Amino acid sequence: MPSRVTESPEFTREEMLQAQRCHSMHIEGARYPITPIGMHYLLIHYDIPFVDPTTYELQVAGLVRNSLSLTLNEIKARPAVTEAVMMECAGTGRSHASPRTVFVPWFDGATGCAEWTGTPLGPLLEEAGLLDEAVEILFTGHDRGVEQGVVQNFERSLSIDEASREGVMLAYKINGQPLPPQHGAPLRLVVPRWYGMASVKWLKSITAISEPFDGFQQGNQYRYKRSADDKGTPVTLQRPRALMVPPGMPSQLGRDRYVEVGKVRIEGHAWSGFGAVERVELSSDGGQTWENVELGQPLGPHAWRPWHHEWDAREPGEYELCVRATDAVGNTQPLHHEEVWNYGTYGINTVQRVHIFVRAPGQTGFEHQNGQAWRLETG
Amino acid sequence: MPSRVTESPEFTREEMLQAQRCHSMHIEGARYPITPIGMHYLLIHYDIPFVDPTTYELQVAGLVRNSLSLTLNEIKARPAVTEAVMMECAGTGRSHASPRTVFVPWFDGATGCAEWTGTPLGPLLEEAGLLDEAVEILFTGHDRGVEQGVVQNFERSLSIDEASREGVMLAYKINGQPLPPQHGAPLRLVVPRWYGMASVKWLKSITAISEPFDGFQQGNQYRYKRSADDKGTPVTLQRPRALMVPPGMPSQLGRDRYVEVGKVRIEGHAWSGFGAVERVELSSDGGQTWENVELGQPLGPHAWRPWHHEWDAREPGEYELCVRATDAVGNTQPLHHEEVWNYGTYGINTVQRVHIFVRAPGQTGFEHQNGQAWRLETG
Repeated sequence: MPSRVTESPEFTREEMLQAQRCHSMHIEGARYPITPIGMHYLLIHYDIPFVDPTTYELQVAGLVRNSLSLTLNEIKARPAVTEAVMMECAGTGRSHASPRTVFVPWFDGATGCAEWTGTPLGPLLEEAGLLDEAVEILFTGHDRGVEQGVVQNFERSLSIDEASREGVMLAYKINGQPLPPQHGAPLRLVVPRWYGMASVKWLKSITAISEPFDGFQQGNQYRYKRSADDKGTPVTLQRPRALMVPPGMPSQLGRDRYVEVGKVRIEGHAWSGFGAVERVELSSDGGQTWENVELGQPLGPHAWRPWHHEWDAREPGEYELCVRATDAVGNTQPLHHEEVWNYGTYGINTVQRVHIFVRAPGQTGFEHQNGQAWRLETG
Repeated sequence: MPSRVTESPEFTREEMLQAQRCHSMHIEGARYPITPIGMHYLLIHYDIPFVDPTTYELQVAGLVRNSLSLTLNEIKARPAVTEAVMMECAGTGRSHASPRTVFVPWFDGATGCAEWTGTPLGPLLEEAGLLDEAVEILFTGHDRGVEQGVVQNFERSLSIDEASREGVMLAYKINGQPLPPQHGAPLRLVVPRWYGMASVKWLKSITAISEPFDGFQQGNQYRYKRSADDKGTPVTLQRPRALMVPPGMPSQLGRDRYVEVGKVRIEGHAWSGFGAVERVELSSDGGQTWENVELGQPLGPHAWRPWHHEWDAREPGEYELCVRATDAVGNTQPLHHEEVWNYGTYGINTVQRVHIFVRAPGQTGFEHQNGQAWRLETG
């Protein structure tokens, strides 16, 4: 059963059930260098399993000289690293595309940059001793469910090179706290630069295998396909993206913004899995003209990069703010989803658009975008 | 402009935007006596404001003898209490009703029972010295936005009796951690037994007033109305509700459940703002017949009460599990939303329903509810 796509501007009950389980970062979270727990996005494929940390054991097996079985305390006793790592769901932006796949209907916020603590994976693989026949490392989670007719534990693989890379860790803390259940307690994989599906949660086993893994989450889901029948190519690294904290005051339902005439500070963060972000641009006319913004320094090589800009909102009226990131290897964000559309609606890294009303100081009446008169009783 | 209602089984873009900002508790969170941060529900009316804790001051003013201005450190230096408090959004269950208000489209999970730490409000009001003309206490948040055409800070009042009641606190910690931004940092009100709108976040000021407050969130929203024009009656205490952790394995999209024939442990928690939960019942036939389940002890007078049951899933087939709570004053949960329907679709405390397939061990083919053949490749 292939996944379904829809062109409806409305959302199905199935999509709403997904949205209530898979938490989006509040877009104003783009303000923080480290995303607070509870604002960081969450994608939960099946259930959040309850895994008892006191009896937990990680299996390291398959094509290795020394199979390992490690308790949580044994993992914590190994060398530890702490690093800010940008994470993003491959489905971010899906709801901006049409048609879209019926899955988690993200807008712009399936993102977060937390500070993860764990033990590097590379040395552990060395200790296990990979045999020559091993070509990939398979990561299996404790989470289990039925997806498109297949009963499965969530599992994904990495090449040996990718798995051994600096920054790849088995994490047991987020932002200095023990992992909460929804982030993969007691132990999860963290793979910097990749979309989040690679960072397998509730890690059950690590297996060295002799053939490239082609299981459901790798051979079927999380692929860039042209159609339902296309095998496509794998979804891997995070494409460049910049987020801005929407300025001013929101309307509750429509999420439009209101600011007064004058200088408006705009800020946010930007990232790319392909290389450092080298340019961030802001547009106030829906992407027709752009100006460069000021870049700050990220907390580390795998963190998002801060930026800010002082926008001169000189005239009352209606504006569309957009922000666009470009990385060191020249990738930049597209203006329209058609440029990156694919059947699974993955990697839809179109620019964020913020609809904003600039009003004169003390202005009390205002025309809303859909023609309804809004009475803005300032006070 | 009154709020809109819809009978559509699909959801609008506005509702989806709400769902991505207002996080539901994952229903399997009903397992934990204390809900982990990041699983606890969140309702964010406008934006999450950034309030600097180092310069924060709480104003206590209005009809008091001694106006107070308290820094966060001064508040933390006051007597502290820590208590598990059940919270729930008044809109829980809205998406089970038809028509429903176009607002946050909750199913069953806008809930959570966290451990809050703060200073009791009663002694602080005594210190301020309420004047005789004072009849209510108004709580104003730093969060600001446009709702149904009105520009406002979020604000709500309580009667002096309610505000002075045991358990009402100004909280600065959740689960032993400093409040994260999305839970109202640096200081929020916590009002046990009431729906969550009473527990004002990002607290800016506390004002003793001489007339019952009739502002937007109290005189217009959060009322039980028969129609758009009805003034209605205020939404106050949490109606009884029981939640179960859905047993077995889920399907990814439909959230149906699969278990094997045999004894199945079912567990969860139940609560009511009107009095202690005295009975919880389980049905496996959609609410036609019920049996009592085993009750445990809650962590405190304002916490949810644990329950469990061993369900004998003897025959393969399709079942609808329901759970129902009854409190000490005789309130019980309705089976159908029509029994509690109101224009704002608040307090829709209908029983939780879990659609479940019981299958024989090793059964590999299975007929899905909508007639699609699902191949369940076990093992």
